[in-house]
Amino acid sequence: MAAARKIIIDTDPGQDDALAILLALGSPELDVLGITAVAGNVPLALTEKNARKICELAGKPETKVFAGAIRPLVRDLVTAEHVHGRSGLDGPDLPEPEMPLQEQHAVDFIIETLMAHEEGEITLCPLGPLTNIALALNREPRIASRIREIVLMGGGFFEGGNVTPAAEFNIYVDPHAADVVLRSGAPVVMMPLDVTHKALTTRSRIAAIRDLGTKVGDACAELLEFFERFDEEKYGTDGGPLHDPCVIAYLLQPELFGGRRCNVAVETGSELTMGMTVIDWWQVTERPKNALVMRDIDADGFFKLLTKRLARL
Amino acid sequence: MAAARKIIIDTDPGQDDALAILLALGSPELDVLGITAVAGNVPLALTEKNARKICELAGKPETKVFAGAIRPLVRDLVTAEHVHGRSGLDGPDLPEPEMPLQEQHAVDFIIETLMAHEEGEITLCPLGPLTNIALALNREPRIASRIREIVLMGGGFFEGGNVTPAAEFNIYVDPHAADVVLRSGAPVVMMPLDVTHKALTTRSRIAAIRDLGTKVGDACAELLEFFERFDEEKYGTDGGPLHDPCVIAYLLQPELFGGRRCNVAVETGSELTMGMTVIDWWQVTERPKNALVMRDIDADGFFKLLTKRLARL
Amino acid sequence: MAAARKIIIDTDPGQDDALAILLALGSPELDVLGITAVAGNVPLALTEKNARKICELAGKPETKVFAGAIRPLVRDLVTAEHVHGRSGLDGPDLPEPEMPLQEQHAVDFIIETLMAHEEGEITLCPLGPLTNIALALNREPRIASRIREIVLMGGGFFEGGNVTPAAEFNIYVDPHAADVVLRSGAPVVMMPLDVTHKALTTRSRIAAIRDLGTKVGDACAELLEFFERFDEEKYGTDGGPLHDPCVIAYLLQPELFGGRRCNVAVETGSELTMGMTVIDWWQVTERPKNALVMRDIDADGFFKLLTKRLARL
Amino acid sequence: MAAARKIIIDTDPGQDDALAILLALGSPELDVLGITAVAGNVPLALTEKNARKICELAGKPETKVFAGAIRPLVRDLVTAEHVHGRSGLDGPDLPEPEMPLQEQHAVDFIIETLMAHEEGEITLCPLGPLTNIALALNREPRIASRIREIVLMGGGFFEGGNVTPAAEFNIYVDPHAADVVLRSGAPVVMMPLDVTHKALTTRSRIAAIRDLGTKVGDACAELLEFFERFDEEKYGTDGGPLHDPCVIAYLLQPELFGGRRCNVAVETGSELTMGMTVIDWWQVTERPKNALVMRDIDADGFFKLLTKRLARL
Ligand SMILES: [Ca+2]
Ligand SMILES: [Ca+2]
Ligand SMILES: [Ca+2]
Ligand SMILES: [Ca+2]
Repeated sequence: MAAARKIIIDTDPGQDDALAILLALGSPELDVLGITAVAGNVPLALTEKNARKICELAGKPETKVFAGAIRPLVRDLVTAEHVHGRSGLDGPDLPEPEMPLQEQHAVDFIIETLMAHEEGEITLCPLGPLTNIALALNREPRIASRIREIVLMGGGFFEGGNVTPAAEFNIYVDPHAADVVLRSGAPVVMMPLDVTHKALTTRSRIAAIRDLGTKVGDACAELLEFFERFDEEKYGTDGGPLHDPCVIAYLLQPELFGGRRCNVAVETGSELTMGMTVIDWWQVTERPKNALVMRDIDADGFFKLLTKRLARL
Repeated sequence: MAAARKIIIDTDPGQDDALAILLALGSPELDVLGITAVAGNVPLALTEKNARKICELAGKPETKVFAGAIRPLVRDLVTAEHVHGRSGLDGPDLPEPEMPLQEQHAVDFIIETLMAHEEGEITLCPLGPLTNIALALNREPRIASRIREIVLMGGGFFEGGNVTPAAEFNIYVDPHAADVVLRSGAPVVMMPLDVTHKALTTRSRIAAIRDLGTKVGDACAELLEFFERFDEEKYGTDGGPLHDPCVIAYLLQPELFGGRRCNVAVETGSELTMGMTVIDWWQVTERPKNALVMRDIDADGFFKLLTKRLARL
Repeated sequence: MAAARKIIIDTDPGQDDALAILLALGSPELDVLGITAVAGNVPLALTEKNARKICELAGKPETKVFAGAIRPLVRDLVTAEHVHGRSGLDGPDLPEPEMPLQEQHAVDFIIETLMAHEEGEITLCPLGPLTNIALALNREPRIASRIREIVLMGGGFFEGGNVTPAAEFNIYVDPHAADVVLRSGAPVVMMPLDVTHKALTTRSRIAAIRDLGTKVGDACAELLEFFERFDEEKYGTDGGPLHDPCVIAYLLQPELFGGRRCNVAVETGSELTMGMTVIDWWQVTERPKNALVMRDIDADGFFKLLTKRLARL
Repeated sequence: MAAARKIIIDTDPGQDDALAILLALGSPELDVLGITAVAGNVPLALTEKNARKICELAGKPETKVFAGAIRPLVRDLVTAEHVHGRSGLDGPDLPEPEMPLQEQHAVDFIIETLMAHEEGEITLCPLGPLTNIALALNREPRIASRIREIVLMGGGFFEGGNVTPAAEFNIYVDPHAADVVLRSGAPVVMMPLDVTHKALTTRSRIAAIRDLGTKVGDACAELLEFFERFDEEKYGTDGGPLHDPCVIAYLLQPELFGGRRCNVAVETGSELTMGMTVIDWWQVTERPKNALVMRDIDADGFFKLLTKRLARL
């Protein structure tokens, strides 16, 4: 068997972040070197605590959790309590974490880890605003060529945005960070709304998770039921899109996803379209292909994988 | 039978403009008061001539054709010969028109016509950049409340753009004009790429038009075959989108189309997204609903209607 | 003696516009072919009336006055009643005009006049937002090469702006029109705040005008006293800047002014600096020199000229 | 005698940075806790080395020098070798430094120092792009209220810019960092081109420095002679503006300077005016007063102070 793939999860939990973390912790193919928290869905003080709650829920309190950026590079922080609840993890009643937060700053951990490993060994998995990743790239530009892949959830094009008509939340919160990451030269795989909106938490899919009959399964079902409310009402669908676990699923079974290499540019100059990811899907410009952008997903396969791995926790 | 609906077609022919004009001239429900040409697909000298060619092809040389804006409000003119050919009407071999161009400026004709009729009598049908319409609204703001409807082809959201990743050609060429029109208070119905990309000129649909066995049918088939080449290669589809006739079809059979009233804002401040129509389809902003935006079409019904009316010419 | 120089004054009176018009009408070297009004300091209905009031005050009711654009090309109209008073000509008590407004639209008059004269015969003197000039250039681009000179009051650089920190009123009201004019290729002479702020209506200068002992002298003194209040309080100076007459004075005695040919670009993409005239005075860019920008003035000579010519009315 | 004022100098030497550092090191009223280098005039590898060269020239190799940001927050680094020479310190022949660079990152040093001292004890003196300061404020927002003052060289308004018509170099290189600093709530004193362009290195002022007859005096004269070439040619003046030492001089003799509290906003949305500091000097907006902006200087007093303190080294 191949060695487990070394990853760092950068995250702002968030119910869907929680599912993504659990999917990773339940997958022996992945070696989660650390979880770095960032301000996003809720402020940093909550996202780092939520990350620890999830690790304890997974029975993996030895996981290293780091706190990172408390605010975006340039703009004021925007949060999304109307989606995720006040705690960011509303739904189940998870206990306060006992495991410690690491002392090192998340950005320093990212840099140190990348510089301490061989080129191409470490994969970054950003599930929130890209502030930590941009700060790491800015502080130590040499990491750009050492990163194996940045597989991120963010953006949207054919689906439009969710926080504004044109912008998806993660990119909108820190468009400048997204701009830095996408121009860094590091290899990027992007999971935009165009793909995550096809991964709906239908009643039967949640039921399958609850039917695991485990503590994790129960908690996940409650997380998903809380989380889907907002989008179900907005879009009138059975279930809401399950964004962040797509990133981890791609590492495990890339064949679940279909996409295209193309240019992605981030709008940072106009409020109307601020944070929009302009994807040159049809190659009408000469801009370089800087990302593999996903648009298709085998949603049943995705939820089957998720459920199976949650069962291991 | 009800009186024919009075319309002014504002256009930059363009093969699809030609089909739209022919559809209107072949429909007794519509009274084409005038055709106003604008610079767009090709320069004004060609679009006004092309409009006359089409009127003569339709056997209606008495139609009044006016020349309007030679360039956009603010930006330099961008044309699309790579799509439409050098003449703008490449495909069939249409004779030089003998009917005269009207002396009056298109913008003055639009204003005069609107002021001379009752409120709510005149419908404007813009099929190109919105320069003429914006100039008319600027010069005589009182027309805004006299217009029955502006039914326009332009913009795109879920389909992205066609001339840039984010912008559709008509709006991109004169984004400032589009901004003026959409903020004018006049009632707007918008046919973006989101609907026109569902109206494909498939082989069988073109065949049905050629099978009319008329001069008009032959010419239309040739126009469509030239026109579809660019998009067929780009999108890999059977047939290309038939944009502009959607506007006229909506006047004849609105039930062919499905859409939603929402806010549309035009990006004019950033080159990356210049001319993008930001459509607040999911109502995530408080911006006022200023347009009925179409997204669905009964494409078979649309082509049936088109073919039937072309048969009358 | 040389033939009088043919000019069209485009204006939004405004007290300083009034002085400029009077200066022109009192100068035999100038042949005022027409005065075209534009919305600016106050709405168009007032500016065209004010223009006629001034012609009657000058004893020249035969002057042709035309109404032009009622609003800017793209943005909503902003006016400046806090500076000019409700009428735009607050100060003296001028009678309602009896002379008629011309029926022709100002933009059409400008085009027709330029096309009817030889190349290089007609000088345009814009004293307000550049809407009419841009509309004329847009409607008939051939006029660009027929214009002898556009000598305009507008912009500011080393002095900053007056309506916002970065933008002068005339350009701010219609930045898109200014952009069109400055990129048109027509020869431009620009009188920005950098020069007009050196032409202060000091007590003694106003006294000299009042001392003319004429109806015109009295009215001008009252206009100036009203007009200077706002800027005197703002800047704490003896007198306020007398903007618009600089344009006419330049035609009469160009040696009163000193400047430099350089590039002027207009900001239209950002609200913070909207309408700023970015003047490349030190040639740090490769942008083409599109204007002769004035920065110095012999203010005493200027007021002497003004007073002498007012004495002729 | 009062305790020396504790400062951190953040710098991208640069000849004028060098003079500023020497002025500080020669002034017993100031306690230079550290010098933090940033990429700017030349890349970071040179600026941190240049900072050490200057400390050794001053005979103070015990000064702590830290390396900071290698690039701006968002934009690509722009340097100014055409002004400062390849080394950034062209002019005298200064030996390679023997004193070590500190291991700690400049941003961490700034944060640690501010958090370790009482509120209001530490003054930051940025003489280059504001990247390090913005990164510190972002990483540890609590420092904003602990900073005594940020006295910075940067921006320009009435003088325009120097690197573009509208933008001064320090702000242009990292406009986003400047935006973060000016919106941080920390007290800011700003030395824009409006004041530094009044502090010219005339022949006699440089002669006075050379006449010190010391190693430092000789080196400074050579630095200034190299540095002034570019601006002397550009502006046609006797001497060039001596920007950065104004910051240190203000700490020593604030009465040399005159200014006004007002709002300063940084343009980050448009390329034309990118990095412009829009100063609301005349308070035409409601924006909060976030900086004390200097515009006047007693240039003779300034150079006298500088020369006297250089004599102490
Ligand atoms: Ca997330
Ligand atoms: Ca068209
Ligand atoms: Ca005026
Ligand atoms: Ca510096």
